[in-house]
Amino acid sequence: MPNAYADRYLGASENLELARQIFGEMNKYPIISPHGHVAASMILENKNFSDPVALLLTPDHYILRMLYSQGVSYEKLAMNSPEDNFKLLAENWRLFRSTPSRIWFHEILATLFDVSEILAPENAMKIYDQIAAKLQSPEYKPQALFKRFNIELLATTDSTADSLSSHIELAKIDLGGRVIPTFRPDDVSDPDRPDWKASLEKLGEVYGIEIDSFARLLEALRKARAHFKDCGATATDHGTFSARTLNLIDSQCDSLFRKVISDGATALEKDDFRAVMLFSHALMAADDGLVMQLHPGSLRNYDANILAKFGGDKGFDIPVATTYTEELQPLLNAVGSHPNFRMVIFTLDESTYSRELAPLAGAYPSIRLGPPWWFNDSLNGLERWRDAITETAGYYNTVGFIDDTRAFASIPVRHGVARRFDAGYLAREVSRQRITESEAMELAGDLAYNLSKEFFNL
Amino acid sequence: MPNAYADRYLGASENLELARQIFGEMNKYPIISPHGHVAASMILENKNFSDPVALLLTPDHYILRMLYSQGVSYEKLAMNSPEDNFKLLAENWRLFRSTPSRIWFHEILATLFDVSEILAPENAMKIYDQIAAKLQSPEYKPQALFKRFNIELLATTDSTADSLSSHIELAKIDLGGRVIPTFRPDDVSDPDRPDWKASLEKLGEVYGIEIDSFARLLEALRKARAHFKDCGATATDHGTFSARTLNLIDSQCDSLFRKVISDGATALEKDDFRAVMLFSHALMAADDGLVMQLHPGSLRNYDANILAKFGGDKGFDIPVATTYTEELQPLLNAVGSHPNFRMVIFTLDESTYSRELAPLAGAYPSIRLGPPWWFNDSLNGLERWRDAITETAGYYNTVGFIDDTRAFASIPVRHGVARRFDAGYLAREVSRQRITESEAMELAGDLAYNLSKEFFNL
Amino acid sequence: MPNAYADRYLGASENLELARQIFGEMNKYPIISPHGHVAASMILENKNFSDPVALLLTPDHYILRMLYSQGVSYEKLAMNSPEDNFKLLAENWRLFRSTPSRIWFHEILATLFDVSEILAPENAMKIYDQIAAKLQSPEYKPQALFKRFNIELLATTDSTADSLSSHIELAKIDLGGRVIPTFRPDDVSDPDRPDWKASLEKLGEVYGIEIDSFARLLEALRKARAHFKDCGATATDHGTFSARTLNLIDSQCDSLFRKVISDGATALEKDDFRAVMLFSHALMAADDGLVMQLHPGSLRNYDANILAKFGGDKGFDIPVATTYTEELQPLLNAVGSHPNFRMVIFTLDESTYSRELAPLAGAYPSIRLGPPWWFNDSLNGLERWRDAITETAGYYNTVGFIDDTRAFASIPVRHGVARRFDAGYLAREVSRQRITESEAMELAGDLAYNLSKEFFNL
Repeated sequence: MPNAYADRYLGASENLELARQIFGEMNKYPIISPHGHVAASMILENKNFSDPVALLLTPDHYILRMLYSQGVSYEKLAMNSPEDNFKLLAENWRLFRSTPSRIWFHEILATLFDVSEILAPENAMKIYDQIAAKLQSPEYKPQALFKRFNIELLATTDSTADSLSSHIELAKIDLGGRVIPTFRPDDVSDPDRPDWKASLEKLGEVYGIEIDSFARLLEALRKARAHFKDCGATATDHGTFSARTLNLIDSQCDSLFRKVISDGATALEKDDFRAVMLFSHALMAADDGLVMQLHPGSLRNYDANILAKFGGDKGFDIPVATTYTEELQPLLNAVGSHPNFRMVIFTLDESTYSRELAPLAGAYPSIRLGPPWWFNDSLNGLERWRDAITETAGYYNTVGFIDDTRAFASIPVRHGVARRFDAGYLAREVSRQRITESEAMELAGDLAYNLSKEFFNL
Repeated sequence: MPNAYADRYLGASENLELARQIFGEMNKYPIISPHGHVAASMILENKNFSDPVALLLTPDHYILRMLYSQGVSYEKLAMNSPEDNFKLLAENWRLFRSTPSRIWFHEILATLFDVSEILAPENAMKIYDQIAAKLQSPEYKPQALFKRFNIELLATTDSTADSLSSHIELAKIDLGGRVIPTFRPDDVSDPDRPDWKASLEKLGEVYGIEIDSFARLLEALRKARAHFKDCGATATDHGTFSARTLNLIDSQCDSLFRKVISDGATALEKDDFRAVMLFSHALMAADDGLVMQLHPGSLRNYDANILAKFGGDKGFDIPVATTYTEELQPLLNAVGSHPNFRMVIFTLDESTYSRELAPLAGAYPSIRLGPPWWFNDSLNGLERWRDAITETAGYYNTVGFIDDTRAFASIPVRHGVARRFDAGYLAREVSRQRITESEAMELAGDLAYNLSKEFFNL
Repeated sequence: MPNAYADRYLGASENLELARQIFGEMNKYPIISPHGHVAASMILENKNFSDPVALLLTPDHYILRMLYSQGVSYEKLAMNSPEDNFKLLAENWRLFRSTPSRIWFHEILATLFDVSEILAPENAMKIYDQIAAKLQSPEYKPQALFKRFNIELLATTDSTADSLSSHIELAKIDLGGRVIPTFRPDDVSDPDRPDWKASLEKLGEVYGIEIDSFARLLEALRKARAHFKDCGATATDHGTFSARTLNLIDSQCDSLFRKVISDGATALEKDDFRAVMLFSHALMAADDGLVMQLHPGSLRNYDANILAKFGGDKGFDIPVATTYTEELQPLLNAVGSHPNFRMVIFTLDESTYSRELAPLAGAYPSIRLGPPWWFNDSLNGLERWRDAITETAGYYNTVGFIDDTRAFASIPVRHGVARRFDAGYLAREVSRQRITESEAMELAGDLAYNLSKEFFNL
């Protein structure tokens, strides 16, 4: 009954022949990954991965979260040997049925390690050994994998004061593609972060500016943005709680900054400050041309115990209801039609797809919609996203697929699965008479490569 | 692979034979368009459309918005010749892939101008000329098209103080159908509109009432409603920001009105006033029987620059999160079960379909759900709407399709596409064993014609 | 064109063979109904149902609501004879096309009364008589039906101070399965309920505690919970307006309680009290192990006239926008990873499925998602639910189907329809290569039986 394995995720069988053609066309293009969380230092150091768990489990908070949700404590995972953790994963593999984690995991096993079996307690150690053996070979070092993955461009995410030394070194190495940084100033934008003042201080030190006024803060940020740009960055990333922006005159910004820095600000004033920072980055973006990426709506570090014991990014960031229309109005009235301003918007609140995001992207020339983010980066999530936004925003007010991953080995398979989805989607649109076959073939390259390349200035 | 052209938008091929039959049944009925934005004066004057752009592009803010979103400035469109704008549209036609604009445009070309090619830069001028030539003939004058479109009834939308002279004249002409007005009192209901006081004054003048109290305002509104009713209106339309209603006693209404009119009201009091106005219209509706249409949730004139340079309705009204349950409780407790009260509710916030609107329409005899509005008037939007509301509200707590268009030529094709969707939907419901074939055939006429005719008192 | 009747609701024909096998596997399991509203006294008394209307219409607020929405007044229904009400239902049967009410009704007719015709005015009396005749026989008494329905466990919902005498008696009778109570303390948790003080007083009386402090309230609640547990309860149920929880120290709880009980609390303080009560039940649940069920987001008794004339549960509870992430943070930080704490969350706001509920259930070991609730307990509702939550929460962070019904005869058919849906869903997941056939067969028993049995400690 299922399609052949080669046709996986290409959609319904009645559209299969065309879906195959579209997918073939997409695969002529290398991978552009304009937003991710792999460490440049890891690629630079180019050490073999120590074991299958270090490659597949440790960096993947999707998998960690699911195991935790069924009683596998992080304490246990921390104490176990890699072999025992792999066995534990196999024993709990039923949890991942129908999830993207399962798909990506088995795509990696099949395409990178020639393992076609479904993980189970019985075959866990055999699979572990197969992977472990290959991981020791030079072909599985990060730089060899980078070439094998056919990555034309990989953007990392880096904090405000980062020296970008790894990127500078990587630029001298032939990887068959580029690794560029992304400027993420969250640490200096949110006064409620425990590291806010330390981050400001560090930023000031790195760029030789005493940040004692709002003007000085902007001066330091401009210098940092310029440094990132010099090191190849074409974009910034903003992981805010809300999308709120606020357009204040300079003197108001300055008095707000002074209140906040002297611990005299109310909760509302701190929120104003965050909104002013987001707005200010938009003005700077219109000036220096770095593409602004906005990812609001996650309540970070939701669980105080998990944070205290295990740190961030352990699956305990939980989405909240998010709105954009009123929040972005100040920003869009200022630079929404500015020829040099570009913004990519993401969301975890799917109710905003048709209600706010598609209408905004379908009106403002500066706005493109990022693909389904995080929990929604899945086959059904992609379907809901294209279904809800395409009729209002079209294809050309989106950017291509973004993997957003810290799991290096998952980059090509995430793009691969997304391409398979899109190929099936376009084939179905042809069969529904909403586009022609030649339009679908043209869209193949646009969705797989051109849209990201063009909008991110790559 | 795709179905034949004649079967377009009728759904999956396994249900096609029945879908064809249902669609055939639907097409026995003329068009009822109980809510639209075509100008009665245009039909009365009955001048030939000057050129293809005046027919197809200028009145269509869906198309304008999409072009703007990809850098086509409204300044450029304003300065271009019609020929150049048509070429520009053709050059950007890829933007509309999979959108309803593309479908409607090509439906018009195919059914009205015998043009079956997909628009492209290469054929743009040939198509332009074909359309332009036909537009000069008497068969393409508005009144001839009105007959050709098989419109039994067309309702326009008209402002509070309108004399309705065009409607009065039109009533004397044989169009093969009626053109009736709809009373839209937004201009006198929202104190934040710049034209609010002027509109009140104009209303007072037209009906010979000095509007210096809330009672006088209601008196003038009642007279205006009566005039609209005399001229054939059966409905009112309310394009509010929120659905909030408020039931105050007369003296409170009056003191609120006096505060607002003397510019002494706070933002909250102005919101109270809007809520009181919506509530008051519901009471008047229970009295005079005009069907109340509620369209909340759009932040109008979002972009100050666009508004200042090009005016309203240029694609820069952006939806916001909207709720209904608590907002409508005062209104529904007052008249929700009143035998003479009727309300049709629309939304731009699809999360309300299953959460609030279907439960309300599935409980109150006075409420029917309007079809997907604006951005959601599309094939996927219709699917999401029927999917989310039918199991709770059924088919009989909806009204038929509403085109809501200012683009005259798109009226029949919008109804045609919606009928095709419904035919496919009903055929699938039969194959899913949720209704029988004979029920589907009965629903055909109800969805295409009877529901609107009956509920709008037409 | 439709599948055979035996294959109804099993999904698309291309997956039918596997869907049949999965459904067959599911049907090897008896029914577990861990949350419902059938009265234990009705089963204990074991009287024949008086007539078809008493069985099929009177207890079903889905049907009552829909009739009301099209002008059938509750006054008329109250005055009519059962025969006339059955005729009235038949005359309005078109209203239920494509709704779950229609499906369940005809499932009951077909499986319990061998009636395979679709209800219509012409056959209404014949069907009535067929049902009426059977209802008089011993095979149609509640206890006989209980056995026939193959119910292993039925949980009822019972108020705080209930003596549970019917449950105690029922435990002595051989039903082929158990009937257990569920503790629902809403009446003593919400100071805005008119019966709040009376309910507190009654609770105090039953357990011999003068409830004059927060500590005494908790003491009484602990005793009541223990009594329920002694009588077989394994769960509590909380039908709150919001999901808000609040963690206050004991002295703050006490002063809050005193303010509320002395009518000196503001609206916000009453809301704090509700949030404190929900939090307190979570602490008690971690202690006594009763599974907490949370059903927020319905504005109860929306229509004052309906409430005054006909009482509650007449279809006039209307959902509101609901959020969970911030509301549940205090509770989850306190007991979210507690080994003895378990919570099942329901919602009427489908926008929370992918945004909040799946991420929470996919992280916290204590949380499972309840199936689609109320208006969304339908074929499309099940599809939207599985579609939105499975990729993040998996199957194993859900519980099995919950019927939530007061209509006794609908219990087996509701489970049957949900099983059919799940069988079709799993078969499609196999054809989409997201799970294997053997995984689907294992999931069959888990979704039909094991998940509820295990998580509810049954």
